[in-house]
Amino acid sequence: MNCFRTSRIVEFGETDMAGIVHFSNFFRYMESAECAFLRSLGLGVKLDWEGQVLGFPRVHASCDYLSPARFEDVLDVDVSALRIGTKSITYGFNFARQGAPIARGKVTSVCCRVLGEHQWEAIEIPASYRARLKPFVEI
Amino acid sequence: MNCFRTSRIVEFGETDMAGIVHFSNFFRYMESAECAFLRSLGLGVKLDWEGQVLGFPRVHASCDYLSPARFEDVLDVDVSALRIGTKSITYGFNFARQGAPIARGKVTSVCCRVLGEHQWEAIEIPASYRARLKPFVEI
Amino acid sequence: MNCFRTSRIVEFGETDMAGIVHFSNFFRYMESAECAFLRSLGLGVKLDWEGQVLGFPRVHASCDYLSPARFEDVLDVDVSALRIGTKSITYGFNFARQGAPIARGKVTSVCCRVLGEHQWEAIEIPASYRARLKPFVEI
Amino acid sequence: MNCFRTSRIVEFGETDMAGIVHFSNFFRYMESAECAFLRSLGLGVKLDWEGQVLGFPRVHASCDYLSPARFEDVLDVDVSALRIGTKSITYGFNFARQGAPIARGKVTSVCCRVLGEHQWEAIEIPASYRARLKPFVEI
Repeated sequence: MNCFRTSRIVEFGETDMAGIVHFSNFFRYMESAECAFLRSLGLGVKLDWEGQVLGFPRVHASCDYLSPARFEDVLDVDVSALRIGTKSITYGFNFARQGAPIARGKVTSVCCRVLGEHQWEAIEIPASYRARLKPFVEI
Repeated sequence: MNCFRTSRIVEFGETDMAGIVHFSNFFRYMESAECAFLRSLGLGVKLDWEGQVLGFPRVHASCDYLSPARFEDVLDVDVSALRIGTKSITYGFNFARQGAPIARGKVTSVCCRVLGEHQWEAIEIPASYRARLKPFVEI
Repeated sequence: MNCFRTSRIVEFGETDMAGIVHFSNFFRYMESAECAFLRSLGLGVKLDWEGQVLGFPRVHASCDYLSPARFEDVLDVDVSALRIGTKSITYGFNFARQGAPIARGKVTSVCCRVLGEHQWEAIEIPASYRARLKPFVEI
Repeated sequence: MNCFRTSRIVEFGETDMAGIVHFSNFFRYMESAECAFLRSLGLGVKLDWEGQVLGFPRVHASCDYLSPARFEDVLDVDVSALRIGTKSITYGFNFARQGAPIARGKVTSVCCRVLGEHQWEAIEIPASYRARLKPFVEI
């Protein structure tokens, strides 16, 4: 299985009064890592694909917080495709700081055709899109 | 001159590691207060108005921070229309906690016709829209 | 079982380019509702309690998205205590718009004594704190 | 005068329903660029410095929006020190996309000694801190 890794630094405005990254920001970190991963494959969460516009609204997101992250920590984020269904994809995310685990998360999106302004219809993931993700699917 | 007041409580996730509201959140507070003000007049920052869709993209925003705000502080926000030009509106915002000043801000938006997905054209503020704001304009 | 309900309006800045509330914001909505619930009981996520400072860092958060929420939608949020363990509490959240389900979420926090700046130690939930939550625990 | 440039990509969750970066996020972008600039000099907005803890709470922030930024735009951010007073520093920020101006902003912070949890006292900027910024001051 191939793996995609990106990293980021914790910004001041991402911390809260407890002095750690606010838990909600990990979901933003996940989306950012997912998009970086998809860009590396010529894919995206919103893109023109074979004559139609695809979007991937989220239907599930979760995160387990193992250890707090602080201002200016550099976080490594490993992205993998946990499951690719007919119409949905679940990505998994592992956050670590210098090898020490920080958090583990999951996001499930549904492949949709964008019909008009802010209207979608769930469709099967196009075979050509799926093919690019395949080397990253966990077994 | 009429005045519009709304209030809000500071959320945990709006604070930063310094223990105070992160400065960027005051701009979200301003937009929230502006929208509450506009709703009270049957107006909005994005709405159907006499057969066309209006939007108000921002061209300027500023804030002076006078005293920090903390978790669960209740902030009163006074909104006024500092200036209504031909195509633009500048709103002023005063933040206070139990009468003590916290911050003062300004946001200028341009009245636009929304042409398609994410495309606008600046237009004159419709007279009927302007008329509802008039009692709140500072002189 | 008692129930706590709060409501909120969707802000412009909480939407994303898909025209709906960005999925990460539901976690902010949950925290906001949890804090409103706790305040109604004289409790909090950070407070002085019987001579020590308590904090409740999150160890888990999840959300299922059932239907999109849009700008100026009014969302009702029902809060319940799904489980109160020795040291941890899991809150459940149901989001609805005019009775139609929008999202369902969960957040688990650990009761901690705040020792110094940004340092905590997990402790048993004080009996007096637990007693106030009890009427809201789901069975 | 020396100049510091950093760049970033616009994230999905930073856009709003108008399809562009929400105006409040430019203030987060500014802080992020300021911190990257300060790190490059061995400085920071919160750091131990010669035996005391320094913090730089903001007293003013403003932004002019010249052209919208969209999802996955790569923004270059140029940082300079517009003015270094006795106790305060004003940074200037120019945002551009492939050379085309997007926004211009300013943030003024006051140098403070952090006395305890969430308490500060304004002090003169230490000479050694000031010296590192000097090559970046606009005249």
